[in-house]
Amino acid sequence: MTVGETLGNRARVRAAIEAAVNAGARVIVLPELANSGYMFADLAELRTVAESATGPSVREWELLAQEHDLVIVAGFAEAGDDGLIYNSAVLVDKTGLRAVYRKVHLWDHEKGNLFTAGSAAPPVVDTAWGRIGVAICYDLEFPEWVRSAALDGAELLCCPVNWPLYPRPAGERPSEIVKVQANAAVNRMFIAVADRTGLERGQHWLGGSVIVDADGFPLTRITLGEETMLLADINLAKARAKGISARNDVHADRRPSLYTRVTDS
Amino acid sequence: MTVGETLGNRARVRAAIEAAVNAGARVIVLPELANSGYMFADLAELRTVAESATGPSVREWELLAQEHDLVIVAGFAEAGDDGLIYNSAVLVDKTGLRAVYRKVHLWDHEKGNLFTAGSAAPPVVDTAWGRIGVAICYDLEFPEWVRSAALDGAELLCCPVNWPLYPRPAGERPSEIVKVQANAAVNRMFIAVADRTGLERGQHWLGGSVIVDADGFPLTRITLGEETMLLADINLAKARAKGISARNDVHADRRPSLYTRVTDS
Repeated sequence: MTVGETLGNRARVRAAIEAAVNAGARVIVLPELANSGYMFADLAELRTVAESATGPSVREWELLAQEHDLVIVAGFAEAGDDGLIYNSAVLVDKTGLRAVYRKVHLWDHEKGNLFTAGSAAPPVVDTAWGRIGVAICYDLEFPEWVRSAALDGAELLCCPVNWPLYPRPAGERPSEIVKVQANAAVNRMFIAVADRTGLERGQHWLGGSVIVDADGFPLTRITLGEETMLLADINLAKARAKGISARNDVHADRRPSLYTRVTDS
Repeated sequence: MTVGETLGNRARVRAAIEAAVNAGARVIVLPELANSGYMFADLAELRTVAESATGPSVREWELLAQEHDLVIVAGFAEAGDDGLIYNSAVLVDKTGLRAVYRKVHLWDHEKGNLFTAGSAAPPVVDTAWGRIGVAICYDLEFPEWVRSAALDGAELLCCPVNWPLYPRPAGERPSEIVKVQANAAVNRMFIAVADRTGLERGQHWLGGSVIVDADGFPLTRITLGEETMLLADINLAKARAKGISARNDVHADRRPSLYTRVTDS
């Protein structure tokens, strides 16, 4: 995606969705700020690409979802009715717009006079293809937040991300993916992550898209840095079975009355 | 360790501590139920190996800590004053017993008329060697619990564990270690795990001991299944610096007022 090339970006997203449909996908996850690029020069530039949740990008995704009976989760720069800009993601299905989620944990220069943080819980939506939650990028580094979606019954968490490329020790999987694996395993919930790739205005992206199963293991190749489409067949019944031993259940074993430290301000 | 061979087990633990001291260790972590074995036939057998926190095992560890200026974190079956048995760990240093922690999240047959679950927070203790927290095995699969210790200032979390060996996909690191890595990274806290190894009454153990840095990467080889001593030099200042970008801090970025779902009972 290239900042500012709104129509070209929208067409590329549409082509990616159609390619996924042709490959058999019914739940499709696109990156954070999928239709706009990420490396905005300033708020003025960001405003030129922001759209409302009833704007042309979301409308196009709704029509595609209706035509092909899809669930699409995609990130976009949301122009709020309040005049503020949010780093948001929608969940649309064949019935239209089901949820708009505004990223709660903002990353670095998103905070620098660009985006306003959301303050509503991650949505969890019953769809024809399962009970699906939404979280965005840095949200995944707050296990409390992922837990909220899982406790609300998400069987699959769909996560638009833009992961900057950082150095890591030789042979080590990127920490962002390790956190996704752990989030999945401790909740017995599938997680599908769509990342950005390539180089944008000096920023290299990890390209770490992955689909992780309810045991926390990747169902797809780790294709770091490649522009790719990852596909997996998922049996969400596995995410509804929270038992992991004769006497253990990852959610029932929680001791919520002891976790008050986590909500201390 | 062999269930029932109390004196022999205690001598083996002592020998392991002395070997670590000779290798230069000053903070030493031993496995869960380090001095007793784990696969108890029943409560009657468990009672034969349980000791109070002022019993001979803890007393021996206190004397070793005093002699060599150590911090020792070790698991043992605790005979409580209330007549109940806890799956506990102590933290001792040169001044004596600093904390007794009773495992809060019990695993499988521990619940089967053997151990009683604790209900106190993971202790975090200021020692000559840093601010050190304690959690035990399955506790690590509850990120809320690890977060509690991190928010209380733990720079290093010392974790006695007994990880049963489970199958995993080829080429994948054990899920237990992935969770430790994620817990470390999301808190910028070091974690040292001492696991059991070998075969005990039909149960194969993972032998997944590891020391993980504040970025969530292993500082030690992953020596699955080996009886081994892992050593790492740790600079705890790294754990006191929670910043991860110009504008991000893994703890300050939390939104605790939004995390109330996690404490819902």
